[in-house]
Amino acid sequence: MTRISPASVLPSFLSDSDTFGAARMAGSRMKLELSRVVQGRGRLGVLKELGKTGQCSLEVPGCLLHTHLGTVPHLTQETRGTLSNLPSVTQVSLSNIAEHQEVLEEFKDGVTKFAGLRDTVLYCSLHDPATPCPTGYTTNKTVSVWGSGGRIELTVAKFMALQKTVQPDWYQSMADGETWLNNTSRKRVRKSVDRTLAHLDECLLVHQQSQELEGVEVFGVVEGGDILEERVRSGRETAKRPVAGFCLDGLQTGSMDQALRTQLITAVTKELPEDKPRLLQGVGRPDEVLACVEAGVDLFESFFPFQVTERGCALSFSFGISLDPELAVLELDEARVTSGEMQQNGDLNPEDQSLMTSFEIDLKDQRYKDDFRPLVEGCVCYCCQNHQRAYLHHLLVTNELLAGVLLMIHNTAHYHAFFSALREALANDKLDVLKRRVLERD
Amino acid sequence: MTRISPASVLPSFLSDSDTFGAARMAGSRMKLELSRVVQGRGRLGVLKELGKTGQCSLEVPGCLLHTHLGTVPHLTQETRGTLSNLPSVTQVSLSNIAEHQEVLEEFKDGVTKFAGLRDTVLYCSLHDPATPCPTGYTTNKTVSVWGSGGRIELTVAKFMALQKTVQPDWYQSMADGETWLNNTSRKRVRKSVDRTLAHLDECLLVHQQSQELEGVEVFGVVEGGDILEERVRSGRETAKRPVAGFCLDGLQTGSMDQALRTQLITAVTKELPEDKPRLLQGVGRPDEVLACVEAGVDLFESFFPFQVTERGCALSFSFGISLDPELAVLELDEARVTSGEMQQNGDLNPEDQSLMTSFEIDLKDQRYKDDFRPLVEGCVCYCCQNHQRAYLHHLLVTNELLAGVLLMIHNTAHYHAFFSALREALANDKLDVLKRRVLERD
Repeated sequence: MTRISPASVLPSFLSDSDTFGAARMAGSRMKLELSRVVQGRGRLGVLKELGKTGQCSLEVPGCLLHTHLGTVPHLTQETRGTLSNLPSVTQVSLSNIAEHQEVLEEFKDGVTKFAGLRDTVLYCSLHDPATPCPTGYTTNKTVSVWGSGGRIELTVAKFMALQKTVQPDWYQSMADGETWLNNTSRKRVRKSVDRTLAHLDECLLVHQQSQELEGVEVFGVVEGGDILEERVRSGRETAKRPVAGFCLDGLQTGSMDQALRTQLITAVTKELPEDKPRLLQGVGRPDEVLACVEAGVDLFESFFPFQVTERGCALSFSFGISLDPELAVLELDEARVTSGEMQQNGDLNPEDQSLMTSFEIDLKDQRYKDDFRPLVEGCVCYCCQNHQRAYLHHLLVTNELLAGVLLMIHNTAHYHAFFSALREALANDKLDVLKRRVLERD
Repeated sequence: MTRISPASVLPSFLSDSDTFGAARMAGSRMKLELSRVVQGRGRLGVLKELGKTGQCSLEVPGCLLHTHLGTVPHLTQETRGTLSNLPSVTQVSLSNIAEHQEVLEEFKDGVTKFAGLRDTVLYCSLHDPATPCPTGYTTNKTVSVWGSGGRIELTVAKFMALQKTVQPDWYQSMADGETWLNNTSRKRVRKSVDRTLAHLDECLLVHQQSQELEGVEVFGVVEGGDILEERVRSGRETAKRPVAGFCLDGLQTGSMDQALRTQLITAVTKELPEDKPRLLQGVGRPDEVLACVEAGVDLFESFFPFQVTERGCALSFSFGISLDPELAVLELDEARVTSGEMQQNGDLNPEDQSLMTSFEIDLKDQRYKDDFRPLVEGCVCYCCQNHQRAYLHHLLVTNELLAGVLLMIHNTAHYHAFFSALREALANDKLDVLKRRVLERD
């Protein structure tokens, strides 16, 4: 275990002291209060004064609630309400929204109300992280998003018109992120950084002139593919603009291995002001999340439990760190059994997001036919409290529609509980214990 | 309007006086207390002392909760709990259960516990009314059910072994119901009546010798296709057996027109004891329900709202009868508007159960794209209280999984509210008002 020297732990500070970073935008209120920053071991804190009323907050490291136009797939607002620990920030993406612009304009009251959402902060991203979009449709002046009806091309003007219709509390600026394919040239990467900065400047110009967007926050997007100098340039330049935080784009699962990702993120975050949040796009696997938190990432998108649900699987990995020694041994044994099960199901598949990972079990497998245990022993979610693996197996093999509902409840609960455990580990210097537990390398 | 003479209204009576009907089975507790019986205008009452503890009751005319192995499609137990007026009796069918016999045997605690159900009476039918099964697989000694894995042939021995595994509170006996095709011969119909009576006798024999089934109720099945004499014979013979009630089979939607169905049911119910409930299988359309209640039916299966949900539609028909005159006019206008919408969507389709009926609206239709009203004005269900037609339209056209959840909530609520209105109409001599309202023939 790497020892953390007391000197490297920063005291709590208020970001509005403007000690770090660039000037704030007029109306920007979002504040990141870090209670603990350990170089190379992650940042712990609270993102405060979120939303139009400024009453919401979000603990970091944390994640946003992944939705399709405000909907957590399979779940009603009410079912959602049975889950504790859910983030106070709901993510929607323009790819789901763009084709509804006309209807939303007529509706007038924004996506929050259209989707029947209550008590949430709305964050609007460009793409949906759960469904990577085709490449090759980006121009100097436009990016494209794919909805259910096909491609929609966005200029900055159209992008900003959409934001006025969506009425988010917070959105990412328009960006050219087409650099994640393996053989992207240095020239193309440089172009993506330049275009993304140009888009940001244009977005900010429209934003500052729009009364409707007063008090709404903008995140600048850091590009640069896998080229260190471009990443650093993109970070440094974006940080000069009056943004409330940063999206790290083009680093998603499948685009590169974790060692390179860690190296790039570490280099970029050095260029970013300490008091503004960093949101990493497209990364959701627990092992990758842990490594990226150590590299300085604050926020993630929670599309991973949805992907697990869609393949009929249940998240089932250990992250308990505060057990008494006797229980810890028991849990470890249980984890080993589960781990053994997983090896047979499939191994880590960092390349293809549609494949199973080692963090889940495939409930369609015959072995669960007469397994009368809950999905995860000790899980307090509605599904685990009420149903056994055998019942879920039945629902899945007979294509019952309830299967997705119950799996989504469990996977969402499990994933957000993992983030709670991650924060607890950071607060108590137990990140190594957590990592061993999650990666089962004890 | 047919005038109801006071003389035809029976006083309330207790069924356990055994004034009517055949001898009870040992252990049978189910009691039908009728508070109002008007010849040709339906029966109003309460089915009491249901379930193993005898603590549940069910108002008639009423319906059972349609499920797949205890699951209301799309809904968790908790979502279900948000719906008021839901029946206290849950229907499961052997077609969904038969292939799980091995697992259920190992589980030992019955379907109620396997499906995580609480506080419900479990009724087990042979087939699932929402998915008609192929014909041509019935023999003298067997009937077949179709699960997700194909056909399973049942002898009485296997059928009864299944009941012991299911542990229902109440089940229908094994029956040969293959008489609903249009050109079924008189000979085949006679055979179906004979076989079904033989199956019943065999079932009762096994039942009475099975300690596990003590206190469990059996419904005899009345067959007879569209031949009046066979219907009467089947009803009369079944009534001689110690059954707790009667299933009327082979009269399902699509098998015959309503005039013939009414005639047959009227003739059969005259042969059945007054104090035992009659459950009609396979009929769920509101217009048909009304006609069958008048013919003497007490119980229905509630598969109709599920079928409506599966085709992306929302139930939207009027059944309010206790409005003040001013509101009534308003509601009528609204109903006319809605009715106009329906005419364009499609007309009554009694033949094909997969087609839309005039009681629903097709939310996938473009006209709902910017319709910001709830599905049904005044509906108190979760969906109507929180979402508009435009949002549901969006969920449906983008294949969002939440669409089915929300539609199922609304359709279930609407359908069971219709049954409440039906009982209220019977209690207040307003069946004609209700009929005009439902059929929009004012």
